[in-house]
Amino acid sequence: MQDIPGPAVYRISFYLRQLESLQRTAHETVSSKQLGKALGYTDAQVRKDLTYFGQFGHPGVGYRVEELIQRLKKILGTDRVWPVILIGAGNLGRALMSYKGFLRKGFSLEAVFDADPAKVGRRFGELEILPMDKLHDCVHELQVRMAIIAVTPEAAQGVVDLLAKAGVRGVLNFSPTNLKTPPDVFVQSVDLALQLEQLSFRMNMESVAPSEP
Amino acid sequence: MQDIPGPAVYRISFYLRQLESLQRTAHETVSSKQLGKALGYTDAQVRKDLTYFGQFGHPGVGYRVEELIQRLKKILGTDRVWPVILIGAGNLGRALMSYKGFLRKGFSLEAVFDADPAKVGRRFGELEILPMDKLHDCVHELQVRMAIIAVTPEAAQGVVDLLAKAGVRGVLNFSPTNLKTPPDVFVQSVDLALQLEQLSFRMNMESVAPSEP
Repeated sequence: MQDIPGPAVYRISFYLRQLESLQRTAHETVSSKQLGKALGYTDAQVRKDLTYFGQFGHPGVGYRVEELIQRLKKILGTDRVWPVILIGAGNLGRALMSYKGFLRKGFSLEAVFDADPAKVGRRFGELEILPMDKLHDCVHELQVRMAIIAVTPEAAQGVVDLLAKAGVRGVLNFSPTNLKTPPDVFVQSVDLALQLEQLSFRMNMESVAPSEP
Repeated sequence: MQDIPGPAVYRISFYLRQLESLQRTAHETVSSKQLGKALGYTDAQVRKDLTYFGQFGHPGVGYRVEELIQRLKKILGTDRVWPVILIGAGNLGRALMSYKGFLRKGFSLEAVFDADPAKVGRRFGELEILPMDKLHDCVHELQVRMAIIAVTPEAAQGVVDLLAKAGVRGVLNFSPTNLKTPPDVFVQSVDLALQLEQLSFRMNMESVAPSEP
């Protein structure tokens, strides 16, 4: 289980989405071919990806949709609730917390921190925004292993250093910057500007060099 | 220029970040080795990636930081301003628009749409929220090619169909769903729940199967 390539984990997420969609349309079983088709993967790819995690298929039946959903959720860790803290209570932080996907995926916000004294003490949903010097004790008391960072690029490295020192082992980073962490701290970066650049690149290509047959 | 793999375009964005960081610390030149090092790429990888787009190095000098920044920005299309519209004026839409990265990367918000009659007519920064039936004409009048979607997963496909019909050619999608579009419409999906699943997967692996030496 140790050496699963990152892209395979992304594909597990995509399979789960597709299975949930099949479940909504009352499908009870699915073949690797059907599962791959909507996502543009070959059936061999689907089987290979799932084989990383165990044997899921049933001869002559394919995959049972409900069963595979439960097992993939377990693999992805979204069958349980993870306590999580948020650093950065600005606009992005607020939007993230109102984004329903977080709770639906089993993330429960336990505390919010901000370095801005003007924000500390204000309400953030049902929570009060805490100062940064409370972070270390809070992570210990609540046994939090996961944090979401929505601070400025300049502040991000300092925040992640504090988090690592306090015992956080997973960081979802919304700051557009590269973070350095110890090997036992996993950083998942969501760089919105990067996503935009990918889009403008494609648009730019199209206007600079129109597609040829 | 037609067949540049997606990951190479991501790497161009990373090189640009790194170069901008070098520029801030007053570096005038950089070698492919130095450029790759901070990002964990080999110098051969850096040279190969940049070769897709032309010759940038100077013998005995390496790359000139300022020159390479300008050229990479031109390649990524972030040296100009793209008019863009937003569909979905909820919390996520609001946060996205207050996210400074958008303007900094050359995206100018020209109009905002929402299907909720209660939101239509309200202010959204300097703009007024428009009803969906104004979308088609607006895209034509403003000659918009790019849109950002921050609507529910259920509404997303209908919105992207409208956009494609109106002439939009690039979509930044924040809805956690697979979108089907004609081949001449490029969709860049930012699935926040997907990012979270990747993180919980890694945390889960750690708790289920601790790393061994």
